[in-house]
Amino acid sequence: HFEKALSEAEIVFGSQDDELNSFVRGNLVEWGSEFSKLKKTCTELVTQVQRSEKTKLMSVLFEGSSGSGKTALAAQLALESKFPYIKIISPEKYLGHSETSKCVAITKVFDDAYKSPLSLVILDDIERLLEYVPINKRFSNAVLQTIMVCIKRAPPYENRRLMVFGTTSSPDVLSEMTLKDIFNVNIKIPLLTQSKHVLKVLSTVDEKVSTQDLESIASVCPRPIGIKQLLMLIEMAHVSDKQMTSKRFEECVQNYGLQSKNSF
Amino acid sequence: HFEKALSEAEIVFGSQDDELNSFVRGNLVEWGSEFSKLKKTCTELVTQVQRSEKTKLMSVLFEGSSGSGKTALAAQLALESKFPYIKIISPEKYLGHSETSKCVAITKVFDDAYKSPLSLVILDDIERLLEYVPINKRFSNAVLQTIMVCIKRAPPYENRRLMVFGTTSSPDVLSEMTLKDIFNVNIKIPLLTQSKHVLKVLSTVDEKVSTQDLESIASVCPRPIGIKQLLMLIEMAHVSDKQMTSKRFEECVQNYGLQSKNSF
Amino acid sequence: HFEKALSEAEIVFGSQDDELNSFVRGNLVEWGSEFSKLKKTCTELVTQVQRSEKTKLMSVLFEGSSGSGKTALAAQLALESKFPYIKIISPEKYLGHSETSKCVAITKVFDDAYKSPLSLVILDDIERLLEYVPINKRFSNAVLQTIMVCIKRAPPYENRRLMVFGTTSSPDVLSEMTLKDIFNVNIKIPLLTQSKHVLKVLSTVDEKVSTQDLESIASVCPRPIGIKQLLMLIEMAHVSDKQMTSKRFEECVQNYGLQSKNSF
Amino acid sequence: HFEKALSEAEIVFGSQDDELNSFVRGNLVEWGSEFSKLKKTCTELVTQVQRSEKTKLMSVLFEGSSGSGKTALAAQLALESKFPYIKIISPEKYLGHSETSKCVAITKVFDDAYKSPLSLVILDDIERLLEYVPINKRFSNAVLQTIMVCIKRAPPYENRRLMVFGTTSSPDVLSEMTLKDIFNVNIKIPLLTQSKHVLKVLSTVDEKVSTQDLESIASVCPRPIGIKQLLMLIEMAHVSDKQMTSKRFEECVQNYGLQSKNSF
Amino acid sequence: HFEKALSEAEIVFGSQDDELNSFVRGNLVEWGSEFSKLKKTCTELVTQVQRSEKTKLMSVLFEGSSGSGKTALAAQLALESKFPYIKIISPEKYLGHSETSKCVAITKVFDDAYKSPLSLVILDDIERLLEYVPINKRFSNAVLQTIMVCIKRAPPYENRRLMVFGTTSSPDVLSEMTLKDIFNVNIKIPLLTQSKHVLKVLSTVDEKVSTQDLESIASVCPRPIGIKQLLMLIEMAHVSDKQMTSKRFEECVQNYGLQSKNSF
Amino acid sequence: HFEKALSEAEIVFGSQDDELNSFVRGNLVEWGSEFSKLKKTCTELVTQVQRSEKTKLMSVLFEGSSGSGKTALAAQLALESKFPYIKIISPEKYLGHSETSKCVAITKVFDDAYKSPLSLVILDDIERLLEYVPINKRFSNAVLQTIMVCIKRAPPYENRRLMVFGTTSSPDVLSEMTLKDIFNVNIKIPLLTQSKHVLKVLSTVDEKVSTQDLESIASVCPRPIGIKQLLMLIEMAHVSDKQMTSKRFEECVQNYGLQSKNSF
Ligand SMILES: Nc1ncnc2c1ncn2[C@@H]1O[C@H](COP(=O)(O)OP(=O)(O)OP(=O)(O)O)[C@@H](O)[C@H]1O
Ligand SMILES: Nc1ncnc2c1ncn2[C@@H]1O[C@H](COP(=O)(O)OP(=O)(O)OP(=O)(O)O)[C@@H](O)[C@H]1O
Ligand SMILES: Nc1ncnc2c1ncn2[C@@H]1O[C@H](COP(=O)(O)OP(=O)(O)OP(=O)(O)O)[C@@H](O)[C@H]1O
Ligand SMILES: Nc1ncnc2c1ncn2[C@@H]1O[C@H](COP(=O)(O)OP(=O)(O)OP(=O)(O)O)[C@@H](O)[C@H]1O
Ligand SMILES: Nc1ncnc2c1ncn2[C@@H]1O[C@H](COP(=O)(O)OP(=O)(O)OP(=O)(O)O)[C@@H](O)[C@H]1O
Ligand SMILES: Nc1ncnc2c1ncn2[C@@H]1O[C@H](COP(=O)(O)OP(=O)(O)OP(=O)(O)O)[C@@H](O)[C@H]1O
Ligand SMILES: [Mg+2]
Ligand SMILES: [Mg+2]
Ligand SMILES: [Mg+2]
Ligand SMILES: [Mg+2]
Ligand SMILES: [Mg+2]
Ligand SMILES: [Mg+2]
Repeated sequence: HFEKALSEAEIVFGSQDDELNSFVRGNLVEWGSEFSKLKKTCTELVTQVQRSEKTKLMSVLFEGSSGSGKTALAAQLALESKFPYIKIISPEKYLGHSETSKCVAITKVFDDAYKSPLSLVILDDIERLLEYVPINKRFSNAVLQTIMVCIKRAPPYENRRLMVFGTTSSPDVLSEMTLKDIFNVNIKIPLLTQSKHVLKVLSTVDEKVSTQDLESIASVCPRPIGIKQLLMLIEMAHVSDKQMTSKRFEECVQNYGLQSKNSF
Repeated sequence: HFEKALSEAEIVFGSQDDELNSFVRGNLVEWGSEFSKLKKTCTELVTQVQRSEKTKLMSVLFEGSSGSGKTALAAQLALESKFPYIKIISPEKYLGHSETSKCVAITKVFDDAYKSPLSLVILDDIERLLEYVPINKRFSNAVLQTIMVCIKRAPPYENRRLMVFGTTSSPDVLSEMTLKDIFNVNIKIPLLTQSKHVLKVLSTVDEKVSTQDLESIASVCPRPIGIKQLLMLIEMAHVSDKQMTSKRFEECVQNYGLQSKNSF
Repeated sequence: HFEKALSEAEIVFGSQDDELNSFVRGNLVEWGSEFSKLKKTCTELVTQVQRSEKTKLMSVLFEGSSGSGKTALAAQLALESKFPYIKIISPEKYLGHSETSKCVAITKVFDDAYKSPLSLVILDDIERLLEYVPINKRFSNAVLQTIMVCIKRAPPYENRRLMVFGTTSSPDVLSEMTLKDIFNVNIKIPLLTQSKHVLKVLSTVDEKVSTQDLESIASVCPRPIGIKQLLMLIEMAHVSDKQMTSKRFEECVQNYGLQSKNSF
Repeated sequence: HFEKALSEAEIVFGSQDDELNSFVRGNLVEWGSEFSKLKKTCTELVTQVQRSEKTKLMSVLFEGSSGSGKTALAAQLALESKFPYIKIISPEKYLGHSETSKCVAITKVFDDAYKSPLSLVILDDIERLLEYVPINKRFSNAVLQTIMVCIKRAPPYENRRLMVFGTTSSPDVLSEMTLKDIFNVNIKIPLLTQSKHVLKVLSTVDEKVSTQDLESIASVCPRPIGIKQLLMLIEMAHVSDKQMTSKRFEECVQNYGLQSKNSF
Repeated sequence: HFEKALSEAEIVFGSQDDELNSFVRGNLVEWGSEFSKLKKTCTELVTQVQRSEKTKLMSVLFEGSSGSGKTALAAQLALESKFPYIKIISPEKYLGHSETSKCVAITKVFDDAYKSPLSLVILDDIERLLEYVPINKRFSNAVLQTIMVCIKRAPPYENRRLMVFGTTSSPDVLSEMTLKDIFNVNIKIPLLTQSKHVLKVLSTVDEKVSTQDLESIASVCPRPIGIKQLLMLIEMAHVSDKQMTSKRFEECVQNYGLQSKNSF
Repeated sequence: HFEKALSEAEIVFGSQDDELNSFVRGNLVEWGSEFSKLKKTCTELVTQVQRSEKTKLMSVLFEGSSGSGKTALAAQLALESKFPYIKIISPEKYLGHSETSKCVAITKVFDDAYKSPLSLVILDDIERLLEYVPINKRFSNAVLQTIMVCIKRAPPYENRRLMVFGTTSSPDVLSEMTLKDIFNVNIKIPLLTQSKHVLKVLSTVDEKVSTQDLESIASVCPRPIGIKQLLMLIEMAHVSDKQMTSKRFEECVQNYGLQSKNSF
């Protein structure tokens, strides 16, 4: 009955694309050349799976700090791939599932994927799927083993090709679990390190503020910063009806204890 | 039947506000400028959630020593917010619940919250909810994972906004669990460090004593001290029918072994 | 059926007072001024709960070496309080209970207490209730969490006041569990450190021996010593029909390996 | 059904005395003055329980190397006490019992003991009852807690007196478990350290060998040695029909790898 | 039902040979003399089991880095052996099986093997079968013990001979488990260490590219490299329709984060 | 049903002697004087149990490297003893049994033994019976405790005598478990350390090769070596139809990775 109770939240999305869109939330800003280049590289890999008959299995791990935009990028690439079978395995779907039923569900996603000629599975927030916690390094070994076997096994049918995306903000933990090495490809998602990156985001989000004001805000913004934290900070600085200023921006950083956030 | 037996205690409160009031117990004394400033900051955050459509999720962690007034402040802010859906998840409600049924209950509170346009959930005494104990660093990982997913997930419905308050007196433990970083905002609740803070509380509570007497009491009061311990000390010093004196006050500190309390 | 089998032993006592008396066993000897003073302090706390309407909850921890007389003192204070509801939660009552049924039972004692205007609960031998053992620091976290929540929660009803006594001979362990800090008051029960303390006990127990003999016995008695061990030693020294002598007393200490007892 | 299967072995003994005798096996040799003195001390304690009305509970721990004769002495004292209720709790009786059913059984022995005016319970080989193993210091905490509570609790009825004997060859482990301190009295059983001790045993067991031969055997016997190992060695040296010689005795020590035995 | 759900994937293969072929995928390239020599050695061992009546049991462990070609070699040898009973025990077959049902299944494979005069069992990816993870060195001891007993026990019937192949990329872990020593023979599978090894593979796979181009590609290929990683790299470098060049080859190594792969 | 499935393998042997013979496999070669002497010592112990009425229980532990011939020797001695009740408890019999059912089975073997006037129980490969693994020193404590009690308890009936043989290649582990000390006698089985030992085995097994050739083979054989590894090596060297030479012998050692085997 626990699982029944939870299913409510799952039926929210009308289509697969709706669900993916909810992870992207609007258009991705190309805030710098690193970001643009790696997005292109990923698109090439998707094309390889689509075209090369020899590539029966391709697994890609996106690693980056919390809030760097991993989930959004993976979801965006999935949307653009137009693969007939796309599935996102995310922790919130398995809230309260037992270890075993989680393994069953994950296995089922892969078994279903083998039935489609081209399929893409996203394993989002892998350390959360594993219920990993640094204290005593606890996690679900059953889920880990299931994932390890699933992303190593090529589709056992003819003419089937499978692409797997994984996201993690603890690549070292995954490495210690020997999970990271199983992925064929590793992509590192960077934080925003330069004020021009911040400016790019500011100018996309807030069109009413003058360029000069935006520049002074960008210059006081703590860096490196994740795109997620930056967007939240902009929302906070906006709230008091008045126009956003660099003073207000700095105040928010301080009052809300954001300097100590691990992504700053 | 255990859970049935326990439910007796739960039906005590007539309304949501009654329950919240039981955590505040009377008016909060504004004993110093730090306290007043942080209360204002919190009120602003509540306003942001209320107004900004982009802020679908805002989570705030109140950290401070035991007895510093975290629970009372969170409850007071909730009362003032007038949000249509307010729920407090506190350890005493889950006395004797199994790990699983605790997870179910917590998930249900959040699922219900998504149905209200504006909702506020208080996770009180998080380390107690996790059944954390420093010896061998034991705790319920299932509850931790449930909380981590719940406070990271924005409402999956349109036009729903969720505010989450958490309280803890062990922020370092939460940080080691990677739970602290998931909160968007951190607010630190201070202890009373100056004798004028103590005096403010004394003069509000005990109107019959002369200012001079109160000052001499305030000067002997061990510091820093939590508002909770100070109020208890005042009650003890009062008991012998006679007027409270600084000698009686000091005696209580000693006889009851209060110097060694960790909040002094 | 295990619990049924055990219940036999429980129905032994006719009334609540009979049970409490069985923990006191006769009158408490006031063997020194430290003991007399702390007994008075405790009585004052009982009076505070009885009279002050603000004090809804008062918890007191008695800590002291094994055999120092903690349980006897707590039971004696309870007897003298004349509170309408008095309950002693002691390890022998829960022999063979499962962790869960122990938690249920403890919770029930507190739930019942909330129904009485004035109630007193004794948690005797807390480390035994927790099934604590120093090897690998094992203990029942479920029982610990139940106790922590129960002694922190004020009665949720109007006009109810609750007093809690706890006894422990491992205060450092309780401190490491963050349980000790939850108690409002700490009382330390001392051992008998001076020969005049021993003499006071000897003269109360053994009226037939001459004062000079008692003095010579008191001078050879190993110190510090717990009241419990002293009373046992006196019984042993008595057994051979003849009058007790200091030689016989010393012999007992040696033959029975009592020097190495941790309370000496 | 496991327990049923095992019960066969239990119905072997006709009476309580038969069972006790099986642990003594013949008369105890008084092989030295230490042994004689401690046996007398123990007899006095039995008398105290028998006579002193105040001594409701007396617990004695026999500690000594493996094979030093602890079980035999405890059983012999029990036989001589003539108490109406005598019960031996030994590991072989609980072979294959679950932790819980072991706790039930132990509790029942004590509950039954309270019904007799004078009773004696032997807890034989306590570390084996606890299923203790030094690797990772594993043991049954449930059994430990049951034992700790049972030997601390005085009979809850009027006019009942209880004596408890425990035996152990790992007193340090019991001490680390805080179990050793709960016993009122500690008795240390020594090994045979002098050649005259060995001679005493040899001359009692083997009457046909000349005194001179026995002396030369005694002089080659490795020491210190437990009475149990000595008796086994004598049996081995005897086997070849011929008279036992010191050469044959030494050969046995070597061929059978007995030098390395921990009791030598 | 979990196991039922999974069985779908298992019925994929029409015959035993089909399944083995799926692990080989095409012909094995003899890329160097080390490889050719060890393949010959293995073939001799197969012949010994086939011919020598005394050799009732022969177990061979293939160890090598991830992607070195262990599974493919074991499967190829099995195909060539033409033994009447061949079975591959691989982790993907036991996805989601409980520990116990895995043990049952493994035992059954061996029990069935005893019924055939000549049989061959492959234990593929042993650390995965054991669900081994380096963090806290967790694994299924039940599966380990089952495997240890199965590969040590000769067929209990007359005229039965059994060959066992194991593959592992963590020989040190297996050694620490005392599992490695139970195998009669150890075969180490090397990585490709010289550019002529790479060239041999390139020229077999890609017949259209000129020898000179292949040589320049071989010279930029990171080494040592596993055959599996090399084949994947070639596929990636091919994807853009155009002819593969050494520049494109190097780009792939960098963009896809392949330098850090543990097999390079 | 798992246990049913497994029982198939057990019904293989027609008689007790058939089973024992399967562990001996042919005649034992007396390859050196150490071996001959210790076999004689063991035979004497068997005789002692047969004849001495006082020796109700005799336990002997055979320790030696893996492949040194422990199991074969124990089985051979059992065959020669002609005791009416002989039982071998070996790991392969308990494949897949639960911990509990293993304990039941072991206890039953001993209970049955008590019913025979003379009985002999072999506990083969004790660390495997305990499912011991060095990683984190895991093992079944339930099985260990059962074994410890069973081999310490003399038959509870009159006129019954019991002999116990244990074999182990990890005596240090058994010692750490305090299991080794419970055995009355320790016998160490040596490896073959001299070339004349190897020669003795070669000449017994291979009668067609000239003495000179055997000598040159013996001289290249790695030493010390277990009898089991030596016999396997001879089989391998034989396989190619041609006569065995020292060159072929050395090749086998190298190709099969046998130098690194722990028994060399
Ligand atoms: N390039 C981008 N341009 C604009 N918005 C972005 C971009 N990348 C991410 N976002 C926004 O930031 C939000 C948070 O990013 P996302 O959840 O993908 O980060 P993450 O790295 O997965 O974080 P976490 O480690 O917490 O899971 C997304 O909902 C999306 O709206
Ligand atoms: N600012 C304040 N003015 C007056 N009373 C206060 C104030 N803050 C807290 N209190 C009182 O102190 C009591 C205890 O404070 P509270 O329970 O909120 O502290 P806490 O930090 O949550 O403690 P804990 O760590 O033990 O949970 C409250 O019941 C309330 O009555
Ligand atoms: N002040 C006293 N005067 C006379 N007897 C006392 C006194 N205090 C304790 N006793 C006696 O000593 C006995 C043992 O004391 P008690 O059980 O209270 O000690 P404790 O500190 O609780 O020991 P433990 O740590 O073993 O639980 C009591 O039964 C009581 O009869
Ligand atoms: N004083 C004695 N005189 C003669 N025989 C003795 C004496 N003490 C013990 N024995 C004999 O030695 C045997 C073994 O001694 P016992 O079992 O009591 O030793 P233990 O210290 O309990 O050993 P363990 O530590 O192995 O339990 C007894 O069966 C008994 O026959
Ligand atoms: N000698 C070879 N020639 C050509 N292809 C090979 C050769 N060896 C292996 N391969 C190919 O490489 C692929 C992967 O190799 P394989 O799975 O056997 O490696 P592995 O060592 O078992 O890797 P893992 O450690 O990941 O299990 C095989 O599917 C096969 O097609
Ligand atoms: N003295 C011997 N002469 C001839 N063959 C022997 C001798 N000892 C052992 N063997 C042979 O060696 C084989 C293996 O020996 P055995 O299984 O007894 O060794 P082990 O020490 O028990 O090994 P493990 O530690 O692996 O259990 C036996 O099947 C037997 O045929
Ligand atoms: Mg994410
Ligand atoms: Mg609080
Ligand atoms: Mg007490
Ligand atoms: Mg004993
Ligand atoms: Mg493989
Ligand atoms: Mg063996």
